[in-house]
Order: sequence, then structure tokens, then C-alpha cells
Amino acid sequence: MPRHYLDHASSTPLRPEARAALEAELDAPGDPGRVHEEGRAVRARIEAAREHVGELLGVRPRQVVFTSAGTEAINAAVFGAALAQPGRPMALAGVEHSAVRDASARAAPLLELAVDRGGRIDVGAVAELLGAPERPALVHCQWANHETGTLQPVAKVVAACREVGVPVHVDACAAAGHVPTDLGALDADLVSVSAHKMGGPPGVGALVVGAGRRFKPFVVGGQQERARRGGFENGPGIVGFGAAAAALAEGGCLEREAERARGQTAELLAAALGVDGVSVLGELRPEGRLPHLICLSVDGVEAEGVLIGLDRAGVAAHSGSACSSETLEPSPVLAAMGVEAERSLRLSVGWSTTDDDVAAFAAAFDPVVAGLRALRA
Amino acid sequence: MPRHYLDHASSTPLRPEARAALEAELDAPGDPGRVHEEGRAVRARIEAAREHVGELLGVRPRQVVFTSAGTEAINAAVFGAALAQPGRPMALAGVEHSAVRDASARAAPLLELAVDRGGRIDVGAVAELLGAPERPALVHCQWANHETGTLQPVAKVVAACREVGVPVHVDACAAAGHVPTDLGALDADLVSVSAHKMGGPPGVGALVVGAGRRFKPFVVGGQQERARRGGFENGPGIVGFGAAAAALAEGGCLEREAERARGQTAELLAAALGVDGVSVLGELRPEGRLPHLICLSVDGVEAEGVLIGLDRAGVAAHSGSACSSETLEPSPVLAAMGVEAERSLRLSVGWSTTDDDVAAFAAAFDPVVAGLRALRA
Repeated sequence: MPRHYLDHASSTPLRPEARAALEAELDAPGDPGRVHEEGRAVRARIEAAREHVGELLGVRPRQVVFTSAGTEAINAAVFGAALAQPGRPMALAGVEHSAVRDASARAAPLLELAVDRGGRIDVGAVAELLGAPERPALVHCQWANHETGTLQPVAKVVAACREVGVPVHVDACAAAGHVPTDLGALDADLVSVSAHKMGGPPGVGALVVGAGRRFKPFVVGGQQERARRGGFENGPGIVGFGAAAAALAEGGCLEREAERARGQTAELLAAALGVDGVSVLGELRPEGRLPHLICLSVDGVEAEGVLIGLDRAGVAAHSGSACSSETLEPSPVLAAMGVEAERSLRLSVGWSTTDDDVAAFAAAFDPVVAGLRALRA
Repeated sequence: MPRHYLDHASSTPLRPEARAALEAELDAPGDPGRVHEEGRAVRARIEAAREHVGELLGVRPRQVVFTSAGTEAINAAVFGAALAQPGRPMALAGVEHSAVRDASARAAPLLELAVDRGGRIDVGAVAELLGAPERPALVHCQWANHETGTLQPVAKVVAACREVGVPVHVDACAAAGHVPTDLGALDADLVSVSAHKMGGPPGVGALVVGAGRRFKPFVVGGQQERARRGGFENGPGIVGFGAAAAALAEGGCLEREAERARGQTAELLAAALGVDGVSVLGELRPEGRLPHLICLSVDGVEAEGVLIGLDRAGVAAHSGSACSSETLEPSPVLAAMGVEAERSLRLSVGWSTTDDDVAAFAAAFDPVVAGLRALRA
């Protein structure tokens, strides 16, 4: 049976350009820290990849610190900020990724930021917090939410933090490569990005450090990454990431893909809303959310049944319900928004999504939901 | 000009079996934490890789926690041990890898263990330390040294620690895949291994946790790796690592390769010792060191000149001198042994080394050294 993968927001397939670059790099035996020809050749390709990633993100190459994943980048951001101002709290909203929450909770007392029902961080709450006598060691503001796609008022939050000199970290893992993310213009202290969510390989990400800012490294034990991340470089991963970034930056590719994704998610939404008892979770306005994902609530059925039914029909989707992943808890993101995670369904498209994939969902969704409802009736 | 890569101890080329497995995995789009078919398929292949790595290392699969590299595994071992017993010191010798030293130095006060001129850790010094009233939070004992190849009395050190209930970490990054490393029999609390030094891909390693032991995770933010390492799994890297481990475990491959490496390093040694003023650094007896590497001292010339001369002759080698890598300091390992890093030369072979590679070194070494000495005369 043909498969229709609509879970690109979890991980999107490797782009052909990234695959070719990664495969070529598998032939290279050298340690990029060595002075021999093999080492210098790997070093040159890693630095070229750093330029490509910097160009996509609007920053200078030296601001890009390669990590093993977005999660490590987030851990590093939190760890360094906590070391710089020990004992001070960190501020974050309930819609942040579990990596942001877990890393922060272990490093510092937490201050909670309010969100509205669309999952949008309240800029007023951030301003109020920044006016309090005890300044936080770090404020988190994701660029966009990974479950609902809600775009956050990230420029405003960063500007407010910069104005009072409070460090700010932006988790851009869900957004980078899907909407323009000019990190140079944003000028946050620290930004985390992931390669595999934009068509780069798994096993690589980056922490982007604000121009002129320093941070204390998380993984230590070597002078790699200008002494900002110890450990043998993942050459194939980094070079693959660079190629994915270059492909996205080339001739309006990102904008073209975003436009196509907007059309495909609109079609998915139309098909889903054609079924009774289905509504949108999070931001309703298309311009207020990521182009490539939609989050739905389906009344009267458990998400588990919907996911299994869709999977049997060849459609891969995701849900914030506890059943949908190895995490045993329902999504804290949806809980923070006051909506029911157990009824949620997330559909996400990517560079390789075809009209067939969209049509397969449209054909399968109604009978799957109807079947489950009939069982309960 | 044909190249002759004799720096396998820095990084060894990807084995064909690992390359094939990794490349096949690049087609898989799925998040292994998801319940859809794509996710379950990746999950199954990651768990198969875990079995292969466990089998090579003589432990149960659940003891294997995949990380992004040996360095991350070392950081995790230290971090968890420091959290478990805050404020207590960590004991290590000067010959440990910089990752062991840097991670420990940031987490705890350090206790130094003595080594002999061969770089061998003094078991008596460990016993004395363990008899002192203040027990360390962690004792480090590498399996073998990465610069000289010296095998450590790791079984004795681990047994001494286990007897008094002091946690012990073994950095097996240089040794694993090159000599039999039965970690089940060793029964250390924590062991770090790296994939790329045994013919697996860069960007993946493992922390092996002693049976029944728990540890606090270093990278947090997800339930991956049984809640012991957060972050999206590097599927291609892990699957490639598993294939490399399976290849090594199959039908005496590791022992066969070790035997061949012993022969090749003996030839390299004979060629090197044929030049005046060349001596062996570290362990002299072949049975006391790793089969695939030798460390030499070359009188009257700087290592930098030797490395450049060899590189021009097509031979890639390494040195503990400051010139040899991006690290600006000479090797602390060689300093701890009381020998001169600036005169050191490390040659290392691997699964892909040919007799031609050995012959190329033998032909190039004498003229390179003679040329440098003539310049100084």
C-alpha cells in the first residue's frame, strides 16, 4: 500500500541535495582538527556548511555553533545562562517544548508566562516580568509552536528583553526553514535550530549565538566549534545540514515551499472541517501560524483510534495525546492552552508532500472518524 | 598523488557495512517516537542496532544509551555522578582524555592519580585513594590511552572501586573495536564508547550503564533512550554504528583485524626505529598496548616539520605537539608521562590500511627526518 507521510513537523525526509552532500562526506576519513590533507579538507567543508546555515538564518558563520540536535542546543543555551547568573529564575510559557522546560527546570526556578487560547505568548506578561526587581537569568520565547504552528510575537519579546539587558533564548526548531527567520535582525542572545525538521539529517542542529555575545559551553572536552562545543564533529551531518540550508536559501525556495504548504494545509483543513465536530486548535488565521502544519480537535473519538485508522489507510499523522508517542503524558502545550490533548490531531506537510498525500487524507479521514463514532454509539 | 592515511586513531573511515546501513536509513522519514508505521520501522532498526552494539561490548541492549559522541557520553557520566554526590571530588590520571578532565574539572574538585613513564595508571595509588576517609564521587580509568596506546589496568581499578562502592567510569573510546572489551565482565558503572573510532559514523557514541545502575541524564527534554538522553534520535548514525559493531563481532573479525594491525604497526615501528634518534613513547611491550597505534619520539626535529613532510609525501599522521591540531597546547597526556610532546609522532592503522600505506611511510620517513635535520645543521 502506498504511504502518505503527513508528519513532517516531527521529522521531514532528507532533501536530495542534503543526501548527496552527506553521502559524499561519508568517504572522508579525516578529523577536521588535524593538519593533514584529509583533516583540512573536512574542515573546509564544515566551514562551507557553516556559511550556508548562517546565510539561511541571516547571521555570520561564526555565530553558528553546530550541536547534535535542537535539543542539545536548547540544553546548551539554558546551561550557559544558568552558569552566568546562578540562582536566578528562567521565564517560559507552557507552550515551550519539553526540552526548554526540562532543561530550565533543572537549572533554575521557573517563572511562568501566560498564553492565550491560541497558544500565543502574552507580550504584556513578559513586559511585566521584566519590570520586576528580580531579573531572570533567561527568558524563553519560541519562534513558533511545534504542535499548533502558532507564530509567537518573538520580535517584540526579544526587543523587550534586549531593552533591559535580560538574556533571551528563542527555540526556532519548528520554524526555521519553514518561514523566513532573519536571526541577525532579531538579535536574540541565543537561538536553537534543528536540521532534520527542515530536510537536513538527524543528529545535527545549531545554537546561534548573538553577535558579540559569549556563552559557556555545555559539552566540554575539546576546542571544537571555537571552544564552544567539545567533541568530534559530525562531518556528514554538518555538511548535510549545510546543503539543506543552501537549497532552502537558493532563489526563493523557502518562500515557494511555504506557499505550496499553505495551499496543502488549507486543503487538509477543508477536508477535515467537512467532518462534523472537527475544529482548529491554536491560531486560526493562516498568517498567524506556520504554513506547513495544522492542529485539529476531533470531538467524540480518542486520537489513538484516529491515528491507527489513518495509519492503516496509509496516512501517517501525529497527535498531542499520550498515545501518540513514547511520552506517557498528554501534550503539556495543549494543556497550557486549555484544550484537550486526547482529541488532538496534527497534520504536517513538507518539501516532498504531493497532492496524492493530501487526497489520501481527505479520502480516509471521514470513514475513519465515522467508524470510530459508530463503535462508540 | 595516492594518499596513505595513518591517523585511524583520530578517526577511521566508515566500514562498508556501516555505510550501507546508514545510507538505507537515510530514506526513512520517521520519528522513532511515533506510533505510525514510519516511526515504528525506525524504532525497530534502532533497537536492532542497540542489540549489535550490546553484543560487541558484552552487555544487554538496555544498558546501551546512544549519545552524539564519546565526548557527550563522558560529559553525561561525569554530570550524573556529580549530581548524585554533589561536592565530592573526582579522581583521574593525567593521561585521561581532555573530555574526561574538562568535564570533571567543571563538576567537582579533582584528585590526581599517578602514572608511570609508560603512562600506566598506578593501581596502588587508586587503592590508597579509595582507603581515604573522603570517598570520591567518581574514579576515571581509561581502557587504553588514545595517544600512546597503553592499556590500563582497568579490571583491577574497576574491581577496587566496586569493592568499596565508589562509582567508576571507563573511557573506552580508544579501545572499543580494537581489543576485546567485555563490559559485562568488567561491570563498571559507566563506560563511554565512540562509533567513528571503530568504523562507525561520526556523530554517534554510547554511554554503557552498568547492569542495574541508574544515572541522571545530561541532555534532557524528551523520553528518548528510556528517559536517559533527550533529543531526536540520530537514526542513520545509530544504525550505522550498529552495523559497524555487528561487522566487528562477526566471526572473529575484531581479533583478525587486531592481529593484522599488530603486524602493520610492527613494520611501521621497525621502519621508524631504523632512523637514528627515534624511540617509542609509552608502553614498549606490544601486549601492553593497543594493536593499531604507536607513538614515537623523534630527536632533533619539531613534530610540525615531520607531519608536513609526511603529508607532502602523501602520508597522514598525527602528533601530540601543539601544531598538530586546533588545540593550542601540547598534549597533556605526554606531559603527564614526563615526555616531550613537541617531538612526538603517532601512527595508527585501521580496517582499510594496506601494505602500501605502511610501505609509503617507510619510504618517506627517513628522507623527511634527514631533510629537517640537514636544515637545522
